[in-house]
Amino acid sequence: MYNYQQLNQFLKGKGGNKMNDIINCMKARRSVRKFMDQQIPDQDLEAILEAGRYAPSGGNNQSCHLIVLQNKSVLKELKELVELEFSKMEIDEGMYKSIKASILASKKGGYDFYYSAPTLVVVANQQDYGNALTDSACLLENMMLAATSLNIGSCWINQLRWLDGNKEIRTFLEKLGLGENETVCGGLALGLKAVKDQEPLKRTGNQITYVK
Amino acid sequence: MYNYQQLNQFLKGKGGNKMNDIINCMKARRSVRKFMDQQIPDQDLEAILEAGRYAPSGGNNQSCHLIVLQNKSVLKELKELVELEFSKMEIDEGMYKSIKASILASKKGGYDFYYSAPTLVVVANQQDYGNALTDSACLLENMMLAATSLNIGSCWINQLRWLDGNKEIRTFLEKLGLGENETVCGGLALGLKAVKDQEPLKRTGNQITYVK
Repeated sequence: MYNYQQLNQFLKGKGGNKMNDIINCMKARRSVRKFMDQQIPDQDLEAILEAGRYAPSGGNNQSCHLIVLQNKSVLKELKELVELEFSKMEIDEGMYKSIKASILASKKGGYDFYYSAPTLVVVANQQDYGNALTDSACLLENMMLAATSLNIGSCWINQLRWLDGNKEIRTFLEKLGLGENETVCGGLALGLKAVKDQEPLKRTGNQITYVK
Repeated sequence: MYNYQQLNQFLKGKGGNKMNDIINCMKARRSVRKFMDQQIPDQDLEAILEAGRYAPSGGNNQSCHLIVLQNKSVLKELKELVELEFSKMEIDEGMYKSIKASILASKKGGYDFYYSAPTLVVVANQQDYGNALTDSACLLENMMLAATSLNIGSCWINQLRWLDGNKEIRTFLEKLGLGENETVCGGLALGLKAVKDQEPLKRTGNQITYVK
């Protein structure tokens, strides 16, 4: 298993930045969607959560709420409930492609929205707070980068955000600790990788305009 | 000036992670609001922008648009326009505290929304894209961390997002390259620091709930 120093060595050989482990880590981060059953070490989980908590927030608000799900039966129940609720929805042409895909997969059966990762972190924030989404995204990005540096696989999970207005899902999550005034902003699957590391993917979008 | 290795040494002495430069960088990042007049080196700008472009995006959409403003007269004109437009607005009790503060400061005069940083990066994304804000926030967080690793000061700037619906501001930004179908999601002030580095600030919010 590589650590951040070995990661940096790996990247230096693949066109990474010769001088900067931090930027190399950003290039090395890839979404992982296949995990080992084994749980991630507690010390890695704690390091990842702490990294997330250190993300910036608007006016130093620090109002994210991280709900860390590691209980197998709770995760199984949530997975089945997500499938059930998506399966009741009808496709609307204006829908985002990934929401359509979730509905279609759920109607077909066997939909696994979090890739059966051993850990799922739900990130919520205050409903009436204008920076809820952006603060949560910074926190999630920190967690993804910290996971990368520790050789833990991760993938952003958006399904619980899409289902935030769903009564059954909310009731379930509120029993687990979601506040009544909180909204789900995103989620993160975490686990030991069951796939080979991939090389950095070149960026062709995210265009730049210079006004010098 | 420290680089990422010196930064890591600094953090190790301040309760940082003994083993991981990447997590230390997240702890070391602090908002900087006072900058030197001197421009940042082009190679640092390029490294920061590249780091941003490597942020994850929903479905690998890569639809952020980075508008890099370094032209002094354009920045001065934009600063004055932002002040003018905020000064026309009336305070509403339901408004976010920082928007209220911007309006009050603008009515008073001399409001400098981007701390006269030599570089202001405006981050926009597609208006009809559901992950516009979260993708942009991940990109901004990568840029802030890369800047920290290069000893460049940075601060998230939200004012142009708040004014995204303002006709005068949109006309100005569209002349600079903002697309008609794009919405401003955030911004970043970048410059050489004119303040001493601060120690990491302990996190007391961003609470965690465990379901094990």
